[in-house]
Amino acid sequence: MSDQITDMDVFFNPKSIAIIGASDTFKFGYTMTYYLLNSDFKTYPVNISKDIIFGHKVFKNINDIPDDIELAIIVVRNENVLQIVKDSVKKRVKGIIIETAGFAETGIEKFVKIQEDIGVIAKNSDVRIIGPNCVGVTNFNNKFTTTEIDFNQSIEGGTISIIAQSGVLGNIFVEWSASQKIGFSKTITLGNKVDVDEIDMLEYLEKDTNTNVITVYLEGVKRGPKLIEILRKLTKPVLILKNGRSEIGSKAIKSHTGSIAGDDKIYDAIFKQYSGIYRVNNFYEMFDIAQVFATQPLPKGKNIAIITSSGSLGILACDEIERLGLKLAVLNESTIQQMRSISPNWTSLKNPVDLGPSIFMTFSKSLKAILNDENVDALLHIFAVPQKPLETFSIPITPHLREMKNLSTKLNKPVITCVFGSRWVLEYFLKHSYKYKIPIMTQISHAIKAFKFLYDFSRSNKNMNKNTEI
Amino acid sequence: MSDQITDMDVFFNPKSIAIIGASDTFKFGYTMTYYLLNSDFKTYPVNISKDIIFGHKVFKNINDIPDDIELAIIVVRNENVLQIVKDSVKKRVKGIIIETAGFAETGIEKFVKIQEDIGVIAKNSDVRIIGPNCVGVTNFNNKFTTTEIDFNQSIEGGTISIIAQSGVLGNIFVEWSASQKIGFSKTITLGNKVDVDEIDMLEYLEKDTNTNVITVYLEGVKRGPKLIEILRKLTKPVLILKNGRSEIGSKAIKSHTGSIAGDDKIYDAIFKQYSGIYRVNNFYEMFDIAQVFATQPLPKGKNIAIITSSGSLGILACDEIERLGLKLAVLNESTIQQMRSISPNWTSLKNPVDLGPSIFMTFSKSLKAILNDENVDALLHIFAVPQKPLETFSIPITPHLREMKNLSTKLNKPVITCVFGSRWVLEYFLKHSYKYKIPIMTQISHAIKAFKFLYDFSRSNKNMNKNTEI
Repeated sequence: MSDQITDMDVFFNPKSIAIIGASDTFKFGYTMTYYLLNSDFKTYPVNISKDIIFGHKVFKNINDIPDDIELAIIVVRNENVLQIVKDSVKKRVKGIIIETAGFAETGIEKFVKIQEDIGVIAKNSDVRIIGPNCVGVTNFNNKFTTTEIDFNQSIEGGTISIIAQSGVLGNIFVEWSASQKIGFSKTITLGNKVDVDEIDMLEYLEKDTNTNVITVYLEGVKRGPKLIEILRKLTKPVLILKNGRSEIGSKAIKSHTGSIAGDDKIYDAIFKQYSGIYRVNNFYEMFDIAQVFATQPLPKGKNIAIITSSGSLGILACDEIERLGLKLAVLNESTIQQMRSISPNWTSLKNPVDLGPSIFMTFSKSLKAILNDENVDALLHIFAVPQKPLETFSIPITPHLREMKNLSTKLNKPVITCVFGSRWVLEYFLKHSYKYKIPIMTQISHAIKAFKFLYDFSRSNKNMNKNTEI
Repeated sequence: MSDQITDMDVFFNPKSIAIIGASDTFKFGYTMTYYLLNSDFKTYPVNISKDIIFGHKVFKNINDIPDDIELAIIVVRNENVLQIVKDSVKKRVKGIIIETAGFAETGIEKFVKIQEDIGVIAKNSDVRIIGPNCVGVTNFNNKFTTTEIDFNQSIEGGTISIIAQSGVLGNIFVEWSASQKIGFSKTITLGNKVDVDEIDMLEYLEKDTNTNVITVYLEGVKRGPKLIEILRKLTKPVLILKNGRSEIGSKAIKSHTGSIAGDDKIYDAIFKQYSGIYRVNNFYEMFDIAQVFATQPLPKGKNIAIITSSGSLGILACDEIERLGLKLAVLNESTIQQMRSISPNWTSLKNPVDLGPSIFMTFSKSLKAILNDENVDALLHIFAVPQKPLETFSIPITPHLREMKNLSTKLNKPVITCVFGSRWVLEYFLKHSYKYKIPIMTQISHAIKAFKFLYDFSRSNKNMNKNTEI
């Protein structure tokens, strides 16, 4: 096992690739095989029982390929993986991704042993190995992937990266995020971590200029002290989801990636101790908040203003603000007066500002008054308008979004929009909001937690360091 | 104020209607006016400054209408509402819905006084009044509505009803629910509750044969002891969301419907004390769980089985199961053997059953083995398959859903599916799952909480009563 961080680059920018167990039928690996063979990445299919795949000549063994191979991707049956790893080392590949499952996580002695043997090979050679039991990596910058990613649907220019043990974060939540217009830089699934682990990848992502926010999903950690060391050093915000809080959850982890969950209280203490490290409760929350870190300026204080057409959702946000120790901004009397002059007498102009159905007439000027108020550090916009009037009157929301973005940028105040209603309404909003990089979410609790983490990060020594560096 | 419960029926089945402040321009009330005037409901538009609306003759005053009117819907400016109420009483209407906002919630003396005066009229006459500051009601059974509901998109045969102070529950969350294929029976928004309150409506819905599950959103309660009395008596499951847990949330309530939030701890104690009454934390959770009550049998015990293609999501579910005091079912050895005989050696067949990418080959038989296991009381199915292979191979999920439904019905065990991924995947699933009445959600925590409430209800005296009645 080498210590050079740059080792990792072979997984994201391989000059030549072999897919061992390449497939052109309904089978795990099909999508990757089809994509890579039709891409500009120099890719060779290897399969012992095929001659041609998607018009490409198939090799029986990686050592038959008349070219250097940097990266081997393995999707053969678990019994055959060890031999393929040996073949790949013989071929002098720099990196191996083993996607095949069925090793330590089965608890079956034979398969546990195979995984150990692979580990020994990694230790005694220069090769770096990701997996087994994973879906590998995706690099959204150069569009290299070893899993089922549809780059036509992904969001360009994303700066969030994912480190996870689990495959579901390599594709399923990437798809969900694309639906929400959240973009990624790199996703990395580590599986059983026979060699490469989250520490290698944290070091890599800290230096990666395309990554601004790091999200981590953890089931267990093998190098605990080292993880603590790197978490302390990182200057980028890190959101961590640690599964297996419960006893039965911990047991289930053993059957998932063969990891030991560890005492949840210890993790909690570690995550709380280091600034810039934030624990989240579920995947949606993780990516909603990451998107805020990726797109919004840090707030100067903890005073939140709310602008909405729904009083009850405004109240829900107030409950969350208090729960997380933030403050509901007290608006200047002049701010309220500016809004009063253009609002019907029945609107509620104390924060939370509830404009009711007058919102399309009064939003623009109210927004300006609120964001310019020096007592306001951040704005939550709660959009709750039924589909029918939106459709019937083709109400344009672009001007409002543009103003939100312009004011937010000019005044250096973060803004988030929560959208409620049918998927039609959400899509309508996303279609327009996308280019303004305003985070859109459906959960108020995520928005308020994002403001809380943003505020904490703004006060942390990590942010101080960053400021002095500039 | 009359005490007759049947009074309420005029709001859901009015024989004749006047819309006072009817509108044919971009303005609150447009959608309702357009819908009712083009419906079979006998509707008369009233507007002091118009002659024709959507081809219908407009009356200057409700008393000019040459017909009896049962229900008056008021959407005029707040200053004019009191006179319109007086006119409506003179016309001998049975019910009035005042949608107009701008009364006690403004805190402005003049408008507080108008609301009080309207309250006195309700008290001293036979008329029942809903509002002000609401969006009225919708009856999905006869398609009567006073708000922006699109019945073409709503789900037929729903048995969930909503009682809320807030307008957002009368339309916004109905739209969201329709996106999720969740159907309603009746929605009722009460606003400032000058007369009709949640107690009137709880009594009405308890007797309503189209309502099986009652959801309530509360900001404040005026008749506390009476609410406790009715909650104790209700035999239908009730899900309650109480906003304003925090101090600043409570203050915001005052500006929303002019209610006093009350001490949250008291509410919490009341909700916990009575069986069949369940407190939820947000709107999505409320309707996800209501849908489970509306469609699934009650479980006999608290042993949950999980079938998934994603280990990490299975672990997340385990954490929730333990947190809520449920149990992860211990599968019979014979169940595991049945699955083993048809599964690849790398699948994890202890509960949570993680079939990984083999799920489409092994789901059907695994499902049958699991649901037939007498140690299993309920099943959570976690669907996490990327869009690409689903699309490429047009993988049919209907047979799996049909089997889930058939087994669930035959064995009397509740099932829930959680779907993860892009909206395309969710829609793909919903399109097929709809007719099988399998609840679909995107949050595992909601599914586990639903099982918990279902289990509690199955053990409650309310359910006992119901069983002896049958």
